[in-house]
Amino acid sequence: MNKAARFIKQALIIMFSLIWFLTITVSARGQDPDDLLRQKGIVLPALPGRLGSYTAVVRSGNLLYLSGKGPVRADGSDVTGKLGKDLDISEGYAAARLCGLAQLSALKENLGKLSRIKQIIKVTGFVNGTDSFYGQPMVMDGYSDLMTEIFGTRGIHARSAVGVAALPKGWPVEVEMIVEIGP
Amino acid sequence: MNKAARFIKQALIIMFSLIWFLTITVSARGQDPDDLLRQKGIVLPALPGRLGSYTAVVRSGNLLYLSGKGPVRADGSDVTGKLGKDLDISEGYAAARLCGLAQLSALKENLGKLSRIKQIIKVTGFVNGTDSFYGQPMVMDGYSDLMTEIFGTRGIHARSAVGVAALPKGWPVEVEMIVEIGP
Amino acid sequence: MNKAARFIKQALIIMFSLIWFLTITVSARGQDPDDLLRQKGIVLPALPGRLGSYTAVVRSGNLLYLSGKGPVRADGSDVTGKLGKDLDISEGYAAARLCGLAQLSALKENLGKLSRIKQIIKVTGFVNGTDSFYGQPMVMDGYSDLMTEIFGTRGIHARSAVGVAALPKGWPVEVEMIVEIGP
Repeated sequence: MNKAARFIKQALIIMFSLIWFLTITVSARGQDPDDLLRQKGIVLPALPGRLGSYTAVVRSGNLLYLSGKGPVRADGSDVTGKLGKDLDISEGYAAARLCGLAQLSALKENLGKLSRIKQIIKVTGFVNGTDSFYGQPMVMDGYSDLMTEIFGTRGIHARSAVGVAALPKGWPVEVEMIVEIGP
Repeated sequence: MNKAARFIKQALIIMFSLIWFLTITVSARGQDPDDLLRQKGIVLPALPGRLGSYTAVVRSGNLLYLSGKGPVRADGSDVTGKLGKDLDISEGYAAARLCGLAQLSALKENLGKLSRIKQIIKVTGFVNGTDSFYGQPMVMDGYSDLMTEIFGTRGIHARSAVGVAALPKGWPVEVEMIVEIGP
Repeated sequence: MNKAARFIKQALIIMFSLIWFLTITVSARGQDPDDLLRQKGIVLPALPGRLGSYTAVVRSGNLLYLSGKGPVRADGSDVTGKLGKDLDISEGYAAARLCGLAQLSALKENLGKLSRIKQIIKVTGFVNGTDSFYGQPMVMDGYSDLMTEIFGTRGIHARSAVGVAALPKGWPVEVEMIVEIGP
């Protein structure tokens, strides 16, 4: 009797451990950012060339500092134009999303797999617009929404969005980022 | 005689410990930022709603990254206008101070008590002004002076102040910040 | 015989240790940023006064946050003007290099010796230009090239370069920086 009880107890422990293990494995799989990109058919662009004497990503401790990136289309061409004049908010939103894909491409090249990212910490968005264009936050949501779409709660970040006079190549938006990685 | 000497020695140790304890308690009380706000009758505004898909404060290690905040009055309305055209330097100074109160409100909500702040590390101020307005530092002093008023030497920070073409909602100034907290 | 062999062995160890020690000493000397400045005849400017209620450098952990600095000439005068109107790219490049010298001056005052710098992490360049000036990266290379000239691979950083409407004192460029120092 004592022996049977011990056997049942051990069997239950093994069973629950297995269920727990499978649960976190499956849920982790479901949250894997690289899998998510594949499932959603999102193709990261080729990492655009640097525009000067700097590099795309620098690590300090467990933080990655990413250089400012503009919106580059899948064919390698740049989106250009000024918000409030050449582009409307939905076009700005799409451009900011392209900046995000360029940054994911830089992260992927640096880290190998995006699942190493623990948290998107800080995003700064520079929006090239007229003096009377106030939709910087709506434009930058194109970037921020991509981060939460791919990283879930780990993609929720602090952010600043400001309107600037001009950007390299005539980009409508340029975005830089700080990311924390796991050990 | 030996016993009396030991008694005096112990009494002195207890007395000096008490004085030392009271001194740091009182001096710490005098420097407590929440008490200072109360003594000065400064009321923090309700935390303004986010303008997009991001959050007000993100922590990484012992650093807090704060999203850019604009000047919101006690009644919840936004200060708007361009420096060098709609607002003069003293109005810009007052607006930058309101940005600071909004950031203190965000910190208070995140930390519970402001005394957990060890050092204000870095402040970046974006000043919405005309092409010929050069008073960005004088405007940003409205923010910086509030930090040293509330945190003393722990409020002294590194800073950049630049002039931008436009800001969300037509704000005259937007400020972001990095803060270090104690263990 | 045994004694002679042991003596030769010890002599060889001492000799190779000496060669190795001299090699790293000399090569380290060759890479010492302060020596490099001297060899190249680069004189750091006097640290320009702050423009408001902040400080030039704040440390958090092993990171130094440097306040935004403008281009100050050796005689203490400021370079002014707008890119695409008053200054061309080569003049902007020279101005950005002056911002770099001002930052090296701030680092030197804070650290004593520049060799304590482990890595230049992040540089943000605000370029005062017209709405149609797109050469921000070429201007900022004046800053970035100085960092790699003085620090070698330790000078390679992440960077953003954006065009702003105006800067304090009418500067054509203002640059802030994050630097990692060794223990």
